[in-house]
Amino acid sequence: MTQRSFEHWMLDIQSRTEAALANHLPSAHIAPTRLHEAMRYAVLGGGKRVRPLLTFAAGELCNAKANQLDAAACAVEFIHAYSLVHDDMPCMDDDVLRRGKPTVHIEYDEATALLVGDSLQTLAFQVLADHAGTQQPAQKISMLSQLAHASGSRGMAGGQAIDLASVGLPLTREELEFMHIHKTGALIRCAVLLGAYSSDTPLDAASLERLDHFAKVIGLLFQVVDDVLDCEADTATLGKTAGKDAANNKPTYVSLLGLRDARQLANDLQQQALTTLQTFGDRAERLQQLTRYIVTRSF
Amino acid sequence: MTQRSFEHWMLDIQSRTEAALANHLPSAHIAPTRLHEAMRYAVLGGGKRVRPLLTFAAGELCNAKANQLDAAACAVEFIHAYSLVHDDMPCMDDDVLRRGKPTVHIEYDEATALLVGDSLQTLAFQVLADHAGTQQPAQKISMLSQLAHASGSRGMAGGQAIDLASVGLPLTREELEFMHIHKTGALIRCAVLLGAYSSDTPLDAASLERLDHFAKVIGLLFQVVDDVLDCEADTATLGKTAGKDAANNKPTYVSLLGLRDARQLANDLQQQALTTLQTFGDRAERLQQLTRYIVTRSF
Repeated sequence: MTQRSFEHWMLDIQSRTEAALANHLPSAHIAPTRLHEAMRYAVLGGGKRVRPLLTFAAGELCNAKANQLDAAACAVEFIHAYSLVHDDMPCMDDDVLRRGKPTVHIEYDEATALLVGDSLQTLAFQVLADHAGTQQPAQKISMLSQLAHASGSRGMAGGQAIDLASVGLPLTREELEFMHIHKTGALIRCAVLLGAYSSDTPLDAASLERLDHFAKVIGLLFQVVDDVLDCEADTATLGKTAGKDAANNKPTYVSLLGLRDARQLANDLQQQALTTLQTFGDRAERLQQLTRYIVTRSF
Repeated sequence: MTQRSFEHWMLDIQSRTEAALANHLPSAHIAPTRLHEAMRYAVLGGGKRVRPLLTFAAGELCNAKANQLDAAACAVEFIHAYSLVHDDMPCMDDDVLRRGKPTVHIEYDEATALLVGDSLQTLAFQVLADHAGTQQPAQKISMLSQLAHASGSRGMAGGQAIDLASVGLPLTREELEFMHIHKTGALIRCAVLLGAYSSDTPLDAASLERLDHFAKVIGLLFQVVDDVLDCEADTATLGKTAGKDAANNKPTYVSLLGLRDARQLANDLQQQALTTLQTFGDRAERLQQLTRYIVTRSF
């Protein structure tokens, strides 16, 4: 498959995910209309949909059909969207710009932003319970369990708590990694695994373990690249307030390792991810392309 | 069964629910420790556990064993606890006292309260996915779906949005009822139904429909009694700031109907609930006792 076909695939997945998200979100004509309008505002029309792309690429590895993957992709994206809405609130990162638009509490109000985040989290579990691709009930329950573990106090929300607690503190690399494994890594890992679990022909235990290793590495890689991006890019390119982490005195891979070593770390993780994928042969090609894309979006 | 045995049963369920909640909450020694400590603070050591009592009483109707009901009872109570933590925040009801203790954002801080609510919601789905009492996977998935529908933007969180939007507005009785069916009723109804679904010998469709009718009536009854309570009781008895709804210019059954007619409505709903339960015979005795308890806690 050529680079051109990868870009075509990416646009295709982004577009079908946008349609699926719009379909699962309650209409803005249904009461409470303002809440539903704000939920749609928070989710639709923006974002690279990296997590859904990973779900689809991992699903392809396991011969899942596209329509089996929509629910898992949406569930993970709803969790991601809820976390952004809450993270942007004044008591957290207090950000006014997201994906080039005013954040939800600016465009609406704080109470609405709180309820938007709450409702998007619920919707993630609802979509998975009602529409997960697999025909195997036990596999579906496992997907719901994985999404919960990845999102909760010992996953994403816990990582956010560690992040808040570490502002202004001199973290070690191990502590920074612990934070990111939770804050970003857990949900990205989950996006990959739910892609595999959406298939009715799941991987054997050994292959699943290798895919899980890849999923953990790509989660960390994503965050390292994000830190580099945040340091390098200007506000216009990112669509969010750049340099914010540094201004907030938040530890990043760049502040800890320096820009050059952070880039080197990204390259090392990329190699580790690609090497793991090689064991799957051709059917991992989308995941390979996606791994390179996650890195080259910045350098 | 005597009144004495009912009180004994209630204490027993409250005590086993407290133990199950404590068991499902992450230890305060696990990182992030402050978040986990605050989650335990928000959930443990308070509350009448009305929703778990309903889950157990409905479970008894369907011959579920007690250890089959713990997960459903905890899941519903975690959703309830998350909603209280978020509702108390400054951007919502801005309350400083709950169950006689400082609210979570007062005892900790706003960011922690936000993450506590988020994580408790996730934990509800996690506990149900990992531990729901039934051995039937399809039934478990249905329970997860029901909990999501009851909690989200077309259930509890949506009711909260309608409540916020209606402050200072002259609601009709139909509008007030629409709000409460969502804000309080949906989760109470769910507490009853999840009790029935935890059993491996579920009800036939017609019986389930009658139980669901009871569940809807008891949800509304609970709110009418709550409004009467809020009007009558003082802060010490309630363990929360009394008369707050009136002070906030929030519509209630009392402000709409007057105290006497609100009491009469409660009596009518109680009769409706008890009449529905009579069709089940003796095995509905706990639900009958619980219905009377929900009313007599105030008058």
